Amino acid sequence: MNISSDVIRSIVELALREDCGQGDLTTLAVIPATAQVEVQAVMREAGVAAGLPVFAAVFAAVDPSLVVTPRVAEGATVAAGTTIAQIAGNARSILTGERVALNFIQRMCGIATLTARYVAAVQGTAAHILDTRKTTPGLRVLEKYAVRMGGGRNHRFGLYDGVMLKDNHLAVLAAQGVDLSEAIRRAKAAVGPMVRIEVEVETVEAAQQAAAAGADMILLDNMPPDMMRAAIQLINGQAQCEASGGISLETVRAVAETGVDYISVGALTHSARALDIGLDMRIANS
Amino acid sequence: MNISSDVIRSIVELALREDCGQGDLTTLAVIPATAQVEVQAVMREAGVAAGLPVFAAVFAAVDPSLVVTPRVAEGATVAAGTTIAQIAGNARSILTGERVALNFIQRMCGIATLTARYVAAVQGTAAHILDTRKTTPGLRVLEKYAVRMGGGRNHRFGLYDGVMLKDNHLAVLAAQGVDLSEAIRRAKAAVGPMVRIEVEVETVEAAQQAAAAGADMILLDNMPPDMMRAAIQLINGQAQCEASGGISLETVRAVAETGVDYISVGALTHSARALDIGLDMRIANS
Amino acid sequence: MNISSDVIRSIVELALREDCGQGDLTTLAVIPATAQVEVQAVMREAGVAAGLPVFAAVFAAVDPSLVVTPRVAEGATVAAGTTIAQIAGNARSILTGERVALNFIQRMCGIATLTARYVAAVQGTAAHILDTRKTTPGLRVLEKYAVRMGGGRNHRFGLYDGVMLKDNHLAVLAAQGVDLSEAIRRAKAAVGPMVRIEVEVETVEAAQQAAAAGADMILLDNMPPDMMRAAIQLINGQAQCEASGGISLETVRAVAETGVDYISVGALTHSARALDIGLDMRIANS
Amino acid sequence: MNISSDVIRSIVELALREDCGQGDLTTLAVIPATAQVEVQAVMREAGVAAGLPVFAAVFAAVDPSLVVTPRVAEGATVAAGTTIAQIAGNARSILTGERVALNFIQRMCGIATLTARYVAAVQGTAAHILDTRKTTPGLRVLEKYAVRMGGGRNHRFGLYDGVMLKDNHLAVLAAQGVDLSEAIRRAKAAVGPMVRIEVEVETVEAAQQAAAAGADMILLDNMPPDMMRAAIQLINGQAQCEASGGISLETVRAVAETGVDYISVGALTHSARALDIGLDMRIANS
Amino acid sequence: MNISSDVIRSIVELALREDCGQGDLTTLAVIPATAQVEVQAVMREAGVAAGLPVFAAVFAAVDPSLVVTPRVAEGATVAAGTTIAQIAGNARSILTGERVALNFIQRMCGIATLTARYVAAVQGTAAHILDTRKTTPGLRVLEKYAVRMGGGRNHRFGLYDGVMLKDNHLAVLAAQGVDLSEAIRRAKAAVGPMVRIEVEVETVEAAQQAAAAGADMILLDNMPPDMMRAAIQLINGQAQCEASGGISLETVRAVAETGVDYISVGALTHSARALDIGLDMRIANS
Amino acid sequence: MNISSDVIRSIVELALREDCGQGDLTTLAVIPATAQVEVQAVMREAGVAAGLPVFAAVFAAVDPSLVVTPRVAEGATVAAGTTIAQIAGNARSILTGERVALNFIQRMCGIATLTARYVAAVQGTAAHILDTRKTTPGLRVLEKYAVRMGGGRNHRFGLYDGVMLKDNHLAVLAAQGVDLSEAIRRAKAAVGPMVRIEVEVETVEAAQQAAAAGADMILLDNMPPDMMRAAIQLINGQAQCEASGGISLETVRAVAETGVDYISVGALTHSARALDIGLDMRIANS
Repeated sequence: MNISSDVIRSIVELALREDCGQGDLTTLAVIPATAQVEVQAVMREAGVAAGLPVFAAVFAAVDPSLVVTPRVAEGATVAAGTTIAQIAGNARSILTGERVALNFIQRMCGIATLTARYVAAVQGTAAHILDTRKTTPGLRVLEKYAVRMGGGRNHRFGLYDGVMLKDNHLAVLAAQGVDLSEAIRRAKAAVGPMVRIEVEVETVEAAQQAAAAGADMILLDNMPPDMMRAAIQLINGQAQCEASGGISLETVRAVAETGVDYISVGALTHSARALDIGLDMRIANS
Repeated sequence: MNISSDVIRSIVELALREDCGQGDLTTLAVIPATAQVEVQAVMREAGVAAGLPVFAAVFAAVDPSLVVTPRVAEGATVAAGTTIAQIAGNARSILTGERVALNFIQRMCGIATLTARYVAAVQGTAAHILDTRKTTPGLRVLEKYAVRMGGGRNHRFGLYDGVMLKDNHLAVLAAQGVDLSEAIRRAKAAVGPMVRIEVEVETVEAAQQAAAAGADMILLDNMPPDMMRAAIQLINGQAQCEASGGISLETVRAVAETGVDYISVGALTHSARALDIGLDMRIANS
Repeated sequence: MNISSDVIRSIVELALREDCGQGDLTTLAVIPATAQVEVQAVMREAGVAAGLPVFAAVFAAVDPSLVVTPRVAEGATVAAGTTIAQIAGNARSILTGERVALNFIQRMCGIATLTARYVAAVQGTAAHILDTRKTTPGLRVLEKYAVRMGGGRNHRFGLYDGVMLKDNHLAVLAAQGVDLSEAIRRAKAAVGPMVRIEVEVETVEAAQQAAAAGADMILLDNMPPDMMRAAIQLINGQAQCEASGGISLETVRAVAETGVDYISVGALTHSARALDIGLDMRIANS
Repeated sequence: MNISSDVIRSIVELALREDCGQGDLTTLAVIPATAQVEVQAVMREAGVAAGLPVFAAVFAAVDPSLVVTPRVAEGATVAAGTTIAQIAGNARSILTGERVALNFIQRMCGIATLTARYVAAVQGTAAHILDTRKTTPGLRVLEKYAVRMGGGRNHRFGLYDGVMLKDNHLAVLAAQGVDLSEAIRRAKAAVGPMVRIEVEVETVEAAQQAAAAGADMILLDNMPPDMMRAAIQLINGQAQCEASGGISLETVRAVAETGVDYISVGALTHSARALDIGLDMRIANS
Repeated sequence: MNISSDVIRSIVELALREDCGQGDLTTLAVIPATAQVEVQAVMREAGVAAGLPVFAAVFAAVDPSLVVTPRVAEGATVAAGTTIAQIAGNARSILTGERVALNFIQRMCGIATLTARYVAAVQGTAAHILDTRKTTPGLRVLEKYAVRMGGGRNHRFGLYDGVMLKDNHLAVLAAQGVDLSEAIRRAKAAVGPMVRIEVEVETVEAAQQAAAAGADMILLDNMPPDMMRAAIQLINGQAQCEASGGISLETVRAVAETGVDYISVGALTHSARALDIGLDMRIANS
Repeated sequence: MNISSDVIRSIVELALREDCGQGDLTTLAVIPATAQVEVQAVMREAGVAAGLPVFAAVFAAVDPSLVVTPRVAEGATVAAGTTIAQIAGNARSILTGERVALNFIQRMCGIATLTARYVAAVQGTAAHILDTRKTTPGLRVLEKYAVRMGGGRNHRFGLYDGVMLKDNHLAVLAAQGVDLSEAIRRAKAAVGPMVRIEVEVETVEAAQQAAAAGADMILLDNMPPDMMRAAIQLINGQAQCEASGGISLETVRAVAETGVDYISVGALTHSARALDIGLDMRIANS
């Protein structure tokens, strides 16, 4: 899934320790050590599959002898009732890993599914849907992956892989007598050649000024579509344009039709509803 | 906030490393090292405050010299526009911690606010609102705390602090010829005296059988209110009763009125929407 | 052994790092890299076997190619001179892991053996032997497992999975004007439905009061048998009873015969003598 | 206490996480957040004080605002009933840390006290009492410190800071046709100039051979005193001599009187009984 | 120093554990616990100061009561014999931290000093000196900081914050029938808008092709100056140009004079000589 | 390679996390997931091979299915152009691990090669070449291994496995009225029997005094050869002698010819130049 297995493993182990603590009291108390089962992970509602490798990694961390077989491809759109994976092996191990595995995949499928709706809403325009840094602490790499599975693209991963001059940065600089153009100049001088610089603006004039000063990307924040259109015209291809600010499934198409290059949506990660996914059990003859 | 500072610190450091990586390029590039600011954290919508100690811990981890002053009590219901905390100190440090601090508190307030709605909906009945283990991997301790701040109570924290015989456990046991009463007997024999035992049932008969066998709590799963009422009558106080299964804000009161002791709602933690909270900056004279 | 392999692995790795540091100077200096040996772990005195999976995990962590074969079941009572496990493979690896593996299993067998003596002493009564939280820092999960292997049961694992109002809690509350009944009421209101509440008492009256206030279990601390018997009579089945306080192998039967449900013994874990276990080597032809 | 605070802190945090998990249910449920107390740590039996800095580190890790004041010096012999430390501050914090702090110090005082008995038993002879690597996994640095507080000396800390050719090493080598002298020669050639080499022998001849081959120290294992005396005479100061093997408080003086330089006793760390130490509370007016 | 204190602290703690292990035998054996000293860190040769905050963090980690006072600014060029910092406090603590603190700062000053020589060699041209990913495992963030202190700029920090199509990537793609232009197109489609794309080329034609296909930066690898000049002319400002490949202090100016924007030098980090820095002690009256 | 695999693995994982962060953007963007390649690691210059097991561990950590085959023995002297290892398997995995694997082995081969030069320079004398504690923070165990591969020996590994009274220790003691002989006496009394004691001296008199007081090894610091010879004569075999202080390849033979037992060279680890090693790719038919 394009994420290093070491990173996945450490997230998964943290989650298992949190849930299992000193042991799964129930399973150890009542389930025979040798019982075998086969379980189907079933989508209770339609959506986009994302996170099966993490789902599998949970069971592998609980018990490497479990066999997890994905039944759909990552990123596939699947109907309600679809089996997305099958798990076979020791009953204790499967029952112990069940909740953590589901917690991961329900969240990831939820994000991918919501992203896919936004992507569908802008289909036919030039706009790409982007995520933000408004992710769940500790799970950013998984959530941004889920956005990709839903057809979205990733904005920067953190404070370390891109410069973004936001309103609060500019306010501090203004108080020191540093204007927008000078701020951009300073940023370009301080960072290496592989770093892009984006600037958040709230007016058409600021947008034009930022483009002229050499910003690589301009964030048009909370602008009505007409104002956005005007800004894009003035920027005239000197920089890429991103729209943001309370954009919903209802409003996203109108925004896309302004000609903006990217639309970022915090809700993709901070407010996606978990998809309903359950494990149906089939008992092996023992 | 009733959580050990060591636990909070390790979650916070993980989140900061994830966001900051090798450094905050923007802040270091353009913000003067000595600039001072004062910032207000403002609720953009009404809700229940939860997580201010975590919010403060983020800024403390970035820079121990920052001064974070909470302006409302944990668990308080606050109106839109309320300042819930103030942060003062080095501008670079505040800008670097901003997003991570907000990511934590927006999620925690979102959970507390949703919980409070469920609690309000059952007011006047004997039912308590419970959370589940359907929490975000790595954040369970914070999310269950947020549920408490919203007026809910906590179900078990993990597989390690309570026995819960669920449908899948009982299915494995049935295949081995072990019935419900025998399963409960085995669980009681295996665990220590401080462990409670809950059993999930889907019929009135099973509910009665579980109570007779000595279960401490009985989970009435996906039952219509009338069936629940019948089960509660038969159990007759021998065990506590918990309702669960797709209970929404619309249906929760009817469930509560059956006389059930507890109602557990997975959505409290897996599908709460983040509350909109922002930082408004005031620039100190420098 | 009913403990997650991830938990065992992290304890084992800590122990190996502590002993091996930057390398096993002796083995690397003099033992040929390819030498093979076969080794028997032999009980030098009679006792209860406990910890073979940890013993095996040490050698697996040193060198996954080693083959460790347990020769007795966990929890088995074995005579002096019994081979409890066999290890075969690379000589350097076995010699490097030897001491750490023995340190674990000698301690765990020591605890299981001492527990079994207490369990035998109360045989025929209704009392169960319990451990306490007086365990070795970092090894609680292993030590409580060893208690189970010796036939004992586990009290709560920590501060997080049960409420226990002890003398010091009650003293603080008394100073605030909160009496025993009110303390129990507060505890019941604060915790979730899966948490049991135990109260420590030193008088018969307090025992009766605690039972009446709804305590699930009552700790009769340092009471002479007659007083204990009186307390149990007054409690009359409303709560379970636990005896504690300097109970030795000599006195435990008299305590059990009072009719108490549980007897907790700190010495099981804080003062068990390590069992004498050694490795006897057989050299493979090379 | 001559151990880096970082090392102590990581052991202490592990222990606190083990005991506190997601939180101290009892304290949070019933103890008011602002209650203050003062507590005395009192030796319930006579012994040697060891571990007060670790005891203090536990409370500091729970709550840095607690004030812990040692009342006796490390290594001091104190009578039953002596207050060895005082802790003042927030009641919740003190109650949460109590058990872990006691678990550490009871074990450490137990080891120091047992060591002091062995040291007293050999007083007037030239022999020093040594510990071994038979320590509790994860606590070696604390246990070896406790041995020093009891008047003992430390053998090597691990496999990494000294060469010790034991019976099993020599058996492997013998099977390869490598004799004792050659083994010592190889060891000397392989390690750096700061590493000492000790050889375990079971006969007088082997002792003499090892000394002649340049061993720095010779371990006379399980020898009767007369045989030991003979060996020491033959070694004649070419190497230092250490006695080991089931030496008890009853036999240690006879061993010391053979003229041996060191006597190592595994029981100091693997079988010391925890000292009985308790916390007596005094409630502050609030 | 523009690096999060949490990152520095974890590197420093790793280094201290590596050096101190279970304790500083020498200091504990002979230095009185209360002795105080004052120490000067003195440059034994001229160079650029870099790493004083790490130097201070080492002493702070050993003992927070030590007072470390920097005497020169980070990035300053200082003469041989200059005192760059002063440390005052407990003698044991200072002696324990000395070597680790020096190991860090000697390496960092060495890198800054070598970088400054390259920067001086290209002065007056438009070229900037860049580092590479050829850094010491575990210390990249410190080494790239040292490069900045020497006047250099940072290339990407890792595989995660920039795309770089190198010879081996292109060889794999060629074998699949994917040419340079198509490779660049694929990269642009896969990554988010904040990621720059650099392409390594070895011919003038490939350079022109890469620029036309939309590469942001072109790495002219191992080209003679004339060929470089030709490539730069053809690229004609469509992309930035970087020279690399065995460039030494002797050849760097000729490379810079071709008009290249950046020159990357692996030797800055993989082969810089440690600067000679020592601690001179002054003993406080005690 | 005589280093525990757990230690290597943790160093390697740290290095991979540092380089890969949230993922290898380039490889994931353009290299097909199923492409296979075969790669040769080739020495671009002559030198001593050291670190192939670490090199292999990097690729194993990235992807356990990669097959790494060493082509030369550790410690072998190889000519420029020699293939030292071959890696076959998934193209993405190999490209992702390439830089980190090379960073380790280039440094280790550089150290082994430089060490071998010093060893060759003293051939025929009785002197051994030693390393120091002037190693790269975090990599000491690997660097000291590389020194052994180059034919050198290891001085102590840290502050914990040997006593070394250096100028600064002696200065602190002198200020307290403790002379050299008394310092040595104190050290011998404080440490266990497996610890050697070395003393740094700058005069012939001090050397003689240290030997008489029972030092095991004497460090003759910064002495001209004649003075060293005089000191060695006076020490007369009572202790081993080590020379140190700015010894270069030019001067090392003269030092060795004084009859010194050991010569320690900090530059082996703090200033070795990385060896030039590259990966040549052969593309598998796919």
